[in-house]
Amino acid sequence: MPTVPLLSDADAHPVASAVFEDIRLTRQVADVNNFWKALANSPPLLQHVWERAKEVMQPGALDALTKELIYIAVSTANSCEYCIHSHTAAARAKGMTSEQYTELQAVIALASTTNALATSMQVPVDQSFNVIS
Amino acid sequence: MPTVPLLSDADAHPVASAVFEDIRLTRQVADVNNFWKALANSPPLLQHVWERAKEVMQPGALDALTKELIYIAVSTANSCEYCIHSHTAAARAKGMTSEQYTELQAVIALASTTNALATSMQVPVDQSFNVIS
Amino acid sequence: MPTVPLLSDADAHPVASAVFEDIRLTRQVADVNNFWKALANSPPLLQHVWERAKEVMQPGALDALTKELIYIAVSTANSCEYCIHSHTAAARAKGMTSEQYTELQAVIALASTTNALATSMQVPVDQSFNVIS
Amino acid sequence: MPTVPLLSDADAHPVASAVFEDIRLTRQVADVNNFWKALANSPPLLQHVWERAKEVMQPGALDALTKELIYIAVSTANSCEYCIHSHTAAARAKGMTSEQYTELQAVIALASTTNALATSMQVPVDQSFNVIS
Amino acid sequence: MPTVPLLSDADAHPVASAVFEDIRLTRQVADVNNFWKALANSPPLLQHVWERAKEVMQPGALDALTKELIYIAVSTANSCEYCIHSHTAAARAKGMTSEQYTELQAVIALASTTNALATSMQVPVDQSFNVIS
Amino acid sequence: MPTVPLLSDADAHPVASAVFEDIRLTRQVADVNNFWKALANSPPLLQHVWERAKEVMQPGALDALTKELIYIAVSTANSCEYCIHSHTAAARAKGMTSEQYTELQAVIALASTTNALATSMQVPVDQSFNVIS
Repeated sequence: MPTVPLLSDADAHPVASAVFEDIRLTRQVADVNNFWKALANSPPLLQHVWERAKEVMQPGALDALTKELIYIAVSTANSCEYCIHSHTAAARAKGMTSEQYTELQAVIALASTTNALATSMQVPVDQSFNVIS
Repeated sequence: MPTVPLLSDADAHPVASAVFEDIRLTRQVADVNNFWKALANSPPLLQHVWERAKEVMQPGALDALTKELIYIAVSTANSCEYCIHSHTAAARAKGMTSEQYTELQAVIALASTTNALATSMQVPVDQSFNVIS
Repeated sequence: MPTVPLLSDADAHPVASAVFEDIRLTRQVADVNNFWKALANSPPLLQHVWERAKEVMQPGALDALTKELIYIAVSTANSCEYCIHSHTAAARAKGMTSEQYTELQAVIALASTTNALATSMQVPVDQSFNVIS
Repeated sequence: MPTVPLLSDADAHPVASAVFEDIRLTRQVADVNNFWKALANSPPLLQHVWERAKEVMQPGALDALTKELIYIAVSTANSCEYCIHSHTAAARAKGMTSEQYTELQAVIALASTTNALATSMQVPVDQSFNVIS
Repeated sequence: MPTVPLLSDADAHPVASAVFEDIRLTRQVADVNNFWKALANSPPLLQHVWERAKEVMQPGALDALTKELIYIAVSTANSCEYCIHSHTAAARAKGMTSEQYTELQAVIALASTTNALATSMQVPVDQSFNVIS
Repeated sequence: MPTVPLLSDADAHPVASAVFEDIRLTRQVADVNNFWKALANSPPLLQHVWERAKEVMQPGALDALTKELIYIAVSTANSCEYCIHSHTAAARAKGMTSEQYTELQAVIALASTTNALATSMQVPVDQSFNVIS
């Protein structure tokens, strides 16, 4: 149950509707996901997030799939149920194999363990990690 | 300031010392990092984490650099100062360019934003994300 | 599905029942929310939390709505589904407009992004932020 | 110790330098904070975050101080040392009194407690919180 | 809705099936929980996590129930719905009384509050906590 | 560097000074820790937190050391540097052995790993965990 209504083209502000149309065209999908329908309650926020997502997630120095894996990692650490689902689906759509998914999970699991250990012991940062001097 | 002493070969249990030696050989480094020196207070835990790290972080369906990027992403979301430093250094040692680092940061930043938005609005998961049925 | 039964007046300890009555009177509601029914499994904890909530959330140097907005922000960052819902509803009951809600979301989203960036780069705190010297 | 060098006007890309100048003019300060000097390693990310901060943090349906309080709340829940310091300083610069700061802390503390309790008991969301039906 | 199918003996790899059998024998249960059925999509990860859980959770310097209480505390702070449920059930199976559960909740609630306060004020660590010198 | 001055008896409000005295007497220490000196900027908050800590942390259905272990677990998951240090010191003062500390770390590490895995796969809660029906 969301805290705001999920808006469709029929209910949304023209600015939001135009973003919906751009999402459908860019992603070649019949309908936009619930995240965008919820964000449409604030057309400027919808527009901002969509423009940012379009720019950040395009292939660059990192390929599109690697970016989705990073997205899943952050969303898992932040316990964002919606984002875990949407970006796991997106990673699969971009070709994530089950071997890659398994390795992603193993790295997330290992990082979660060593994060907790380094934090619980408050290990001081090695001077050798310094790249600035 | 750590909650446990950082042990060197001179202070450590022989089991811990053997792990130190394996780390130095495997990574071709002169000394092990503080994380391992702190973990050495519990030789079985040190051994377990090192064996696990060696296995999980080796190249597989995901290459070694991609795994480091995922590690940085998790460590950032978990606010682990030590792990952010050690894995940013590791990613650089494995060839991370400044363009890749910048894109990693942009993805982490975007994911943090959409995680917060999806969570604050409690957006219901789209049925289309379901891969099980 | 909760980990404890949700208690009503019929099942609850008299101490819990008295707290229920105070909640209904203070808030002018017909029934208490599930949070209190769950907490009623420990009457002293219920009593403590309710007394604290009553004191902290009353208008003071900050008005009641501002306090609810802060509550939503914390609950979002902590991924507390129940609290996000209950305090978004409370904020609306205290007059939160959709413009205010949208701006709240924009600030939470921006803070989440800059939190991640400052953490990932481990930016050192400026000396000028020091108010103590 | 940051993971990237802190750039000054002398070292920064002209795009970053122009952002620095806009920050100094907008905020009427002699120098930009470390956060911006770190972000300057990626001029487009610097530009994006600054433009977003300028837009989101201006007074609107919520006044500028309330936005800073929300920022502190999120930064605290996310354990972002830098952001806690920078936005506590910003809130003071915008007139936060010690009474307001104390009440902010009390709300953050209470929310943290009830977040933990609602999560540990997995309290089901009341149907009455539903604003959609 | 999980991101992977929940595998039963009929669907699982023989390695996973052998782990299932060991779980059933060790815990004297008729069927394994969903967590293991999901992990079975990666037999090596399933095997690793189960072996680790079997070793770490056995009584040692800390008894089995105390370990479950610690597990609930971590899972609550990490907002892991599944783990909160599974380890609250496990703690009850190991004899957790309602008085113990209530005190566990009170400690988690207090720690969450003081964590937030110490973080929001960035209290410097007392030198007297140093055990190393 | 704290966001507020650390107050001593000389600077503190009489209400805060009385709390300081009660802390010194109760804990049989020569001086209070920095946490209390920071909280003293808000005497009512100081008083509330101290009264609560005194009540919650006393031995009950759970002994005092077990409560400290739970406190460390929560503080680690919440990345609270100060609280990790203060409660690790407190646990040692209450007799925590190095074997117990090592097992605490192993449980925290395991829980962090399975939290991440259960969350990343969004494993559905087993009906058998239900204690309510």
